[in-house]
Amino acid sequence: MSAYDYARDHRAEFLRQLKQLLAIPSISTEVEHKADIEHTAAWLVDHLKAIGLEHVQTYQVPAQFGSGLCNPVVYGDWLHAPGKPTVLIYGHYDVQPVDDPEGKWQTRPFEPVEKDGNLFARGATDDKGQVFAQVKAVESLFRAHNDQLPFNVKFMIEGEEELASINLDGFISKYEDLLRADVFVVSDSHILASDRPLIVYGLRGLIYTELEVSGPKVDLHSGSYGGVVHNPIQALCEIVAALHTPDGKVTVPGFYDKVRQITPAEHESIQQIPWTDEEFFQETGLHRDWGEQNHLRRERVGLRPTLELNGIFGGFMVPGGQKTVLPAKATAKISCRLVADQDAHEIFHLLEKHIQTLTPPTVTSKIRLLSTGDGARVNIDSPAIEAAAAAYEHGFGARPVFLPEGGSIPVVATIQKTFHIPALLMGFGLPDDGLHGPNEKFKIDHFYRGIDTMISLYESIAAMSPQIVRQGA
Amino acid sequence: MSAYDYARDHRAEFLRQLKQLLAIPSISTEVEHKADIEHTAAWLVDHLKAIGLEHVQTYQVPAQFGSGLCNPVVYGDWLHAPGKPTVLIYGHYDVQPVDDPEGKWQTRPFEPVEKDGNLFARGATDDKGQVFAQVKAVESLFRAHNDQLPFNVKFMIEGEEELASINLDGFISKYEDLLRADVFVVSDSHILASDRPLIVYGLRGLIYTELEVSGPKVDLHSGSYGGVVHNPIQALCEIVAALHTPDGKVTVPGFYDKVRQITPAEHESIQQIPWTDEEFFQETGLHRDWGEQNHLRRERVGLRPTLELNGIFGGFMVPGGQKTVLPAKATAKISCRLVADQDAHEIFHLLEKHIQTLTPPTVTSKIRLLSTGDGARVNIDSPAIEAAAAAYEHGFGARPVFLPEGGSIPVVATIQKTFHIPALLMGFGLPDDGLHGPNEKFKIDHFYRGIDTMISLYESIAAMSPQIVRQGA
Repeated sequence: MSAYDYARDHRAEFLRQLKQLLAIPSISTEVEHKADIEHTAAWLVDHLKAIGLEHVQTYQVPAQFGSGLCNPVVYGDWLHAPGKPTVLIYGHYDVQPVDDPEGKWQTRPFEPVEKDGNLFARGATDDKGQVFAQVKAVESLFRAHNDQLPFNVKFMIEGEEELASINLDGFISKYEDLLRADVFVVSDSHILASDRPLIVYGLRGLIYTELEVSGPKVDLHSGSYGGVVHNPIQALCEIVAALHTPDGKVTVPGFYDKVRQITPAEHESIQQIPWTDEEFFQETGLHRDWGEQNHLRRERVGLRPTLELNGIFGGFMVPGGQKTVLPAKATAKISCRLVADQDAHEIFHLLEKHIQTLTPPTVTSKIRLLSTGDGARVNIDSPAIEAAAAAYEHGFGARPVFLPEGGSIPVVATIQKTFHIPALLMGFGLPDDGLHGPNEKFKIDHFYRGIDTMISLYESIAAMSPQIVRQGA
Repeated sequence: MSAYDYARDHRAEFLRQLKQLLAIPSISTEVEHKADIEHTAAWLVDHLKAIGLEHVQTYQVPAQFGSGLCNPVVYGDWLHAPGKPTVLIYGHYDVQPVDDPEGKWQTRPFEPVEKDGNLFARGATDDKGQVFAQVKAVESLFRAHNDQLPFNVKFMIEGEEELASINLDGFISKYEDLLRADVFVVSDSHILASDRPLIVYGLRGLIYTELEVSGPKVDLHSGSYGGVVHNPIQALCEIVAALHTPDGKVTVPGFYDKVRQITPAEHESIQQIPWTDEEFFQETGLHRDWGEQNHLRRERVGLRPTLELNGIFGGFMVPGGQKTVLPAKATAKISCRLVADQDAHEIFHLLEKHIQTLTPPTVTSKIRLLSTGDGARVNIDSPAIEAAAAAYEHGFGARPVFLPEGGSIPVVATIQKTFHIPALLMGFGLPDDGLHGPNEKFKIDHFYRGIDTMISLYESIAAMSPQIVRQGA
């Protein structure tokens, strides 16, 4: 029996298992779900053992912030194919919070429901459903090869991706030998449509910061001090307003210095997959876009760095209410999306220096770095990428397009830097699957097609030498 | 027995009564204290009746916002001195919230405590203690004149001053005949020191607004849309930053057009009462001031209009946390302090127009007016003001200084416009009494001196004709 046949015969069982995994509310951003995180990690350990993986266990390194340990990283491998390539498969079992003040969820987020060919649940695509397709592909290959595999495999499934993978670099650095591989596979992105699969070849990095502007030692009466004290909210707004030029460029000196140029071929290829005004206006409800007009929209979100305001707060914040306070301080959440070859720490230092320059002498400012992740770029001209494209043709019946992606998967840059191996960013979800929002779903057919795609990829890789697989990294 | 003697003999009783009044938590800004507001109004009605006032009752006009009635205005008069001047005395019985997240209150705010010659309680000076000194002065005059008065008096004690007196204009307009008088007396300001009484001759008006900037129809992922969507927080900051020039001038066209010029005499007089760097730095913890450097600090807070940011909020607001959201909207609380002869509604329209001009086409903005109050200026060359100065000499043993005040008491402008009569703004509290902050207090000796001062003022007014009292309005 082929791996495809096994997978087809066990679809109902695979789906039932995925529902079990989705039922555990493994929200990493809310401490009250700590036990659910551990429960999910334990569930995965049992599951990986059951399908035939070895050395299955969880790892916890000291947390970068605070005094505890990171959420468990689930590891398992099977390494009995000497001379064959080793694949490192990454995914995450933690999920976004529900965060539903307006009651938009139509089902219970942790009670998976099948509807119209979709499976609705928090984490359905991001990332439980997609990583589970990887697990089921490997299981199918085990069963098709008499509980052996024609290649070597390592799973690394973390529980802090929604926390910007803050401790994963520490784990990878400590367990470099354990994780060594010839190719890195990630299913944490999406495709464009059922007949338009997508290989992501660029990921943006991230620095996340908090900028606090302080003025008077205490909140003051705005009547008694307005006009003689520089209002920290106003000073913060002045600083923030000075971070962009009117045409959408970031003003931080040196910010663009190391940005890898977009090649004519990249530009040409991106132009083939338009992001039309109609689509953009429909998605955002806007009638105008913003930003670097000399770059295509897809270039701006994929291959150009940005600086974003994620939050702002200070003073009196009750809608409709009135309090005539002149507050002691005001705070902004500022993040930058970075591209290859920007260095996250270098960009933070440039930003920090620029903020100092912009801070008037009438207030003080302090910017704190909360997390970093470098951007990444994948060479799309390699045997591994070609195998991935062929695998999509098998699974989805269409040649994939190649696009950069605006989001960040910090682990990709870390793995690239540590092992110098190709990264295959192959998702199965759709753009409207509601990642991070209400009514998250995963098209059930895409779950099955994803499994087929990965079976195809791993059979191709098994037929290649490790040297060939590593080419083009 | 003179009124002074009566007041001196009854100090302990007056203080005990004030403590009763302070024990009722009449916080107007928190709806759960609605019953306390009514309880306080009822207490005052009983008290005014007991000392000899007539027509004592509460009035409630329809509230400007919502469908209910305003908090009760306590009214009482005594009008049996034909041919004598009529004094309209204003005060408020509502108090600021406790708002003590850092536990700075050293006593319970609504259990008045005597300590080091001070009475500690929320509302001790602002305004229960000060308005009660007025009540006790009138009581003392009643007792000294065989339960008669040598002048006519009307009390108007409201319960919404801490809500910017939003419904008081409506009350005054409806009950204009009831309130008609020859001079208006307010004790809701402070003096500089025990030996430095102060008559306030300028009050700033206020407009309080809420500016909302909207972008995409929903919160977006900053990785997927950063760089193509104009971030509403950033757009809000750009608008706010454009509201001042670097040297502290408000950029709203026409903002300063009607501002009454500071006369050389006013400038001279203000220069006599320095607000030293040392004092300013000590009060604020700052090392630099801000604002219109061509004006003295006291001019900037008293005789110049300002635009202040009282609050700002949008996006993700958890300190130390991370969420890569590109929010759908962001909001700022913007208020302007106005001076004579600026018109609050006109200034709002100028601001609204300016905000429209500053709003880029990539977002939309909406500014909402939450309240208004005009600024006021008192002619300090009048018989009534001279009587007030003499009264302070009697009560505090020193000639008062004359200063404009940065805060707002909107009723003053309304009364001036309605009746064209002089306003006497005579406080008894100290600058460090903690109005609106923790550990509010009132120097007990100032309570007694305040009573003496007002007895002196009312005896002087009783000796004047109504025409003389009205001079200089």
